[in-house]
Amino acid sequence: MTSHRKVSRAEHPTWLPKESSRNLGDKRVHIAATGPLVETVRSEFRRAMRLFGGSFVEKIGDAEIVVIVTGDQGPVGLDDETPAAVHEALAAHASEPVSAEGYFLANRDSVSVIVAATDRGALYGVLDLLRSGEPGSGTRREEPAHAIRMLDHWDNMTVHPVMGAVERGYSGDSIFFADGEVRRDLDRVSRYARLLASVGINRVAINNVNVHSTEARLLTDKLPDVARIADVLRPWGIRLHLSVNFASPTLLGGLASADPLLPAVHEWWRQATDRVYDSIPDFGGYVVKADSEGQPGPFTYGRTHAEGAEPLAVALAPHGGIVHWRAFVYDHRQDWRDRSTDRAKAAFDHFVPLDGKFADNVVVQVKHGPMDFQVREPVSTVIGALTKTTVAVEFQVTQEYTGQQKHVCYLGPAWSEILRFRFGGSDAAPLASLATGGFVAVSNVGTDEFWTGHPLAQSNLYAFGRLSWEPLADSIEILDEWIRATFPDTDDGTRAALHAVLDSSWATYEKYTAPLGVGFMVRPGHHYGPDVDGYEYTPWGTYHFADRDGVGVDRTQTTGTGFAGQYPSPWRARYESLAECPDELVLFFHHVPYDHVLHSGSSVIQHIYDTHADGVEDVARLQGIWAGPTQGIDSATHARVTQLLVEQLRSAGEWNDQIRTYFFRKSGLADAGGRPHF
Amino acid sequence: MTSHRKVSRAEHPTWLPKESSRNLGDKRVHIAATGPLVETVRSEFRRAMRLFGGSFVEKIGDAEIVVIVTGDQGPVGLDDETPAAVHEALAAHASEPVSAEGYFLANRDSVSVIVAATDRGALYGVLDLLRSGEPGSGTRREEPAHAIRMLDHWDNMTVHPVMGAVERGYSGDSIFFADGEVRRDLDRVSRYARLLASVGINRVAINNVNVHSTEARLLTDKLPDVARIADVLRPWGIRLHLSVNFASPTLLGGLASADPLLPAVHEWWRQATDRVYDSIPDFGGYVVKADSEGQPGPFTYGRTHAEGAEPLAVALAPHGGIVHWRAFVYDHRQDWRDRSTDRAKAAFDHFVPLDGKFADNVVVQVKHGPMDFQVREPVSTVIGALTKTTVAVEFQVTQEYTGQQKHVCYLGPAWSEILRFRFGGSDAAPLASLATGGFVAVSNVGTDEFWTGHPLAQSNLYAFGRLSWEPLADSIEILDEWIRATFPDTDDGTRAALHAVLDSSWATYEKYTAPLGVGFMVRPGHHYGPDVDGYEYTPWGTYHFADRDGVGVDRTQTTGTGFAGQYPSPWRARYESLAECPDELVLFFHHVPYDHVLHSGSSVIQHIYDTHADGVEDVARLQGIWAGPTQGIDSATHARVTQLLVEQLRSAGEWNDQIRTYFFRKSGLADAGGRPHF
Repeated sequence: MTSHRKVSRAEHPTWLPKESSRNLGDKRVHIAATGPLVETVRSEFRRAMRLFGGSFVEKIGDAEIVVIVTGDQGPVGLDDETPAAVHEALAAHASEPVSAEGYFLANRDSVSVIVAATDRGALYGVLDLLRSGEPGSGTRREEPAHAIRMLDHWDNMTVHPVMGAVERGYSGDSIFFADGEVRRDLDRVSRYARLLASVGINRVAINNVNVHSTEARLLTDKLPDVARIADVLRPWGIRLHLSVNFASPTLLGGLASADPLLPAVHEWWRQATDRVYDSIPDFGGYVVKADSEGQPGPFTYGRTHAEGAEPLAVALAPHGGIVHWRAFVYDHRQDWRDRSTDRAKAAFDHFVPLDGKFADNVVVQVKHGPMDFQVREPVSTVIGALTKTTVAVEFQVTQEYTGQQKHVCYLGPAWSEILRFRFGGSDAAPLASLATGGFVAVSNVGTDEFWTGHPLAQSNLYAFGRLSWEPLADSIEILDEWIRATFPDTDDGTRAALHAVLDSSWATYEKYTAPLGVGFMVRPGHHYGPDVDGYEYTPWGTYHFADRDGVGVDRTQTTGTGFAGQYPSPWRARYESLAECPDELVLFFHHVPYDHVLHSGSSVIQHIYDTHADGVEDVARLQGIWAGPTQGIDSATHARVTQLLVEQLRSAGEWNDQIRTYFFRKSGLADAGGRPHF
Repeated sequence: MTSHRKVSRAEHPTWLPKESSRNLGDKRVHIAATGPLVETVRSEFRRAMRLFGGSFVEKIGDAEIVVIVTGDQGPVGLDDETPAAVHEALAAHASEPVSAEGYFLANRDSVSVIVAATDRGALYGVLDLLRSGEPGSGTRREEPAHAIRMLDHWDNMTVHPVMGAVERGYSGDSIFFADGEVRRDLDRVSRYARLLASVGINRVAINNVNVHSTEARLLTDKLPDVARIADVLRPWGIRLHLSVNFASPTLLGGLASADPLLPAVHEWWRQATDRVYDSIPDFGGYVVKADSEGQPGPFTYGRTHAEGAEPLAVALAPHGGIVHWRAFVYDHRQDWRDRSTDRAKAAFDHFVPLDGKFADNVVVQVKHGPMDFQVREPVSTVIGALTKTTVAVEFQVTQEYTGQQKHVCYLGPAWSEILRFRFGGSDAAPLASLATGGFVAVSNVGTDEFWTGHPLAQSNLYAFGRLSWEPLADSIEILDEWIRATFPDTDDGTRAALHAVLDSSWATYEKYTAPLGVGFMVRPGHHYGPDVDGYEYTPWGTYHFADRDGVGVDRTQTTGTGFAGQYPSPWRARYESLAECPDELVLFFHHVPYDHVLHSGSSVIQHIYDTHADGVEDVARLQGIWAGPTQGIDSATHARVTQLLVEQLRSAGEWNDQIRTYFFRKSGLADAGGRPHF
């Protein structure tokens, strides 16, 4: 599924085209700041000045852009010539200081001022100005909701025979690795880091959570190469993390056991970690997929996951490092005959009893839903239930189950729904505020010239960054930011066309794929395209139980697996009740007859027929929009999207035909719309 | 799916254990023969004499075993001391001489005599004596029904990322190739050639019909290595063939086109072929899979397959070489929505119009059924329809669709049914006699210590050889030969146990897999284990069309694809009629409701339930038999079979559960036997 193009030097600039430097260029700039990232700030201005002119000035009164870091200098010398915007921003900061990564962005009388407490805040402020352009008049306060905003790369060092260069990667090869080594040329990584910093990402795990033998050695003899990557990320305020193999003490250290209770295992992790920090003083920490889909873990030794994480956490703590411990633990050798076992329940069953038992620097990393990044799932019950544990919510920017960067599918609205979910009902705090460990997402970037295979999939990377900074931001407004930044020369009509293509693309994708929250129905292995029964009789725990009478998974407490009971009120009751369960999740929680009538007024079977036909029509409409006037979109981008829309339409048609035929053959109920079955 | 064990030197002796040399040893032997293979004959006796004593004698009158080749010497000097058996055998040969590869085997007064017309016949006679042991009193005449008895290896030189070292191989790696080269050590190939010669195989194609880039070069710069293999096969009367890529003139020759009508293409094949014969004077010829499953072919140039084969045939003809041109041509990008297209019809549609148009030295190689080596198919209509073309019937000894050498499945009875099929009805000639180009089979041999993964799968290799020599021989008698030869120390009870395990193992496999001739229902890709809908919505042309009311493919002329009409009478009418169609093929030819009553008296649905449960019980019974007394079976063989029976039982249970659940969910009809669905 991956192509083997080389790292391109002429890759698409994404949302940071040269034009965006105009926002910093042709200006007189005064920088009153110290700190390691100030050089990065300065280089951004230099780049802008090279392109558009401008200069650094000594006197604050002469400046049109002023950058001030308050934390590392004495009071700024203000005088009569000090622009009013500086006064305003400093006053705002004095009254309610921003946190380490935050900043104030003030604008008055054609002077823009960034005030931050640290050089990191200053960098974010400058990149904000770069990305967003001319600020409106007044003072804007920005700071991230959570301290950890992270991307996980599922990149392999050697091309995996099944999974390729990047597991679930649809954008070419790894930008970090080639031929079993860290790439010599890391220029593209540097440009990637700039992109990430511009949307607030501050951590990157560079290798696949499925840690194969070559990749395991990143922790040991490949450390000098890892350090080279860290050096490239550092100027952009990004800390490097490594995915590690739980069995490293045996795999790499030659120990007889990786039992986390053994002192020798603790000692091995301590020494290994100390060596990492010798090379990379700001190393972020470890990501661990343990006891999951064949990866080793503490269960081998009869230990809990809290015990499993302990040696790593203890080793990292003195250095300020973190363990990201994934909660994606379930039995992938489930018996499909056994309807009482429910993969959706597994993470809760494994992790909630351990609440409060993890070390302080362990972040339990929880996928946003109980299954696996499906187009529609309820939110993970684990996120609501772990109250004494630091929790990171994991998203999947790479579109494994949402079109694999061949389909347009802007995921911002999906993530927003999740982030705004309120476990305790409408008066309770949103899920976003429970992400005490911030947000993590699987990256969708590779060596592709557009970075993301599908040019429009850049919007997902952008949106994840922006939502991880400001989780309750409006996802369509974020998309508008991305459109304006990426295509600065578009007119209103083209921007409206881009919105028409992207705004509801997730809803469109949902229409023509697995219906009503039931999930999967994809081809096993690569997960692209339909195969309704593909996982139905497998050990993977992903079933729909369709028979001639009905479809869906009974997850009620009364007659089903009881998963609904993992939610607090009011959701446990709402999901339990067929009458109250939201339509879009009805087949996730209930097994219903085909003639069951939804809140929408449609029967389940007619809903399936209608939405699938609608979904195909939606894609055809997108094609039409894209073929219309698209002023300000460069020809390469336009051509790639045009080509991919052909595949999307073909694939949507295939989904429609297979799904409707499958359910017609099973139910015998004809489409009231008179559309064909096969 | 393949393991990477090295070639073992201690591999299992199969049906030629040391004990079998006892049949030639401890005897006084007189050889009156010349010819290149006489040295092989002599070496067989030497091997026996080393183990068990014995000697060559000058005088025919002193001998206990006499080998005479009549063709290459003057009259044998007979006198009073000449044993009676010699007189008898010579008289028989004089009265009705055997053909080039045949022999008479006479025995009287403790003297055994082999009389043949050529050294090849003599070798077969000696190997017959070796394999079969003490001949009964009297004279037995043996000669092959057809001149070409061939095995095709689907061996790759380099491990294919998906297909492995041997495509559809379940017995380790290739015995010919490793690491992109012909193996240096070909001792095992020599032992393989001896095995094949002992059952009459006289041709071997050494490489996969899907000819990848490395393998294409066997024809050119790898020729010296190919010649080494030919040198090893030659002493056993076996000619080497190569699978070649139709596009070789462009791939290897740098030509702009491989159009078979171009003089330059003819010239390229002529020169390439001449070079082959310079290295391998007895080279057998080319095997070609063209326009099939992505392989290149004449359709690229708008030419017919007869035209496509022509340049190769012309190039081979002066040297006595043959083109095996496979008839396995169909559209593997079929639209599953289109029920009028039928893969079963494709080979007939492509090849029958070309009848009589192929060059004389082209053999059209036709799979025994119209689909692809399923556990049950009707016979290929092509075999009956090509009356002016040399036809070889192709079997699959490697158990791609019949348990992959993890399941016991003795295929002799299946092949016998096919060979005995009479296109023209009960008075017509059997299919075997239409195989004017003999028989070809895909080998099941690899570097596995038992040669065939499953020790009992050796019986399939044995049976194919024996049936290719004597197509109407009784397959259970052949199995008995194999049992006695392979396990010479077994008692009657153990032999009965082996028969109980093997005789009906094909019938057992059929019971628990795809029912009533419908075929497939296997996991796509690797083809192991059940996936009822696995191919249902794919482009491969292999469907069952199960819906809530019924199942099966309507291939009648009246309402279906018309495939039944490709048969001559009486079969076209018999298959057309639901009332007359044999039960075992009813779903191949008809789409029937689940309550359709078979000739057996059972409904289709109940038949499915019953046979699947029975199949599992059969396997459990086999396990019991195998666990009982098995005197004379070595412990390694016993252990391997024991281990594989565990997997077979698991797999059969999985088939049973999935098939019954699938059909219960669709039909809603409960098993009258009260057995569970899931």
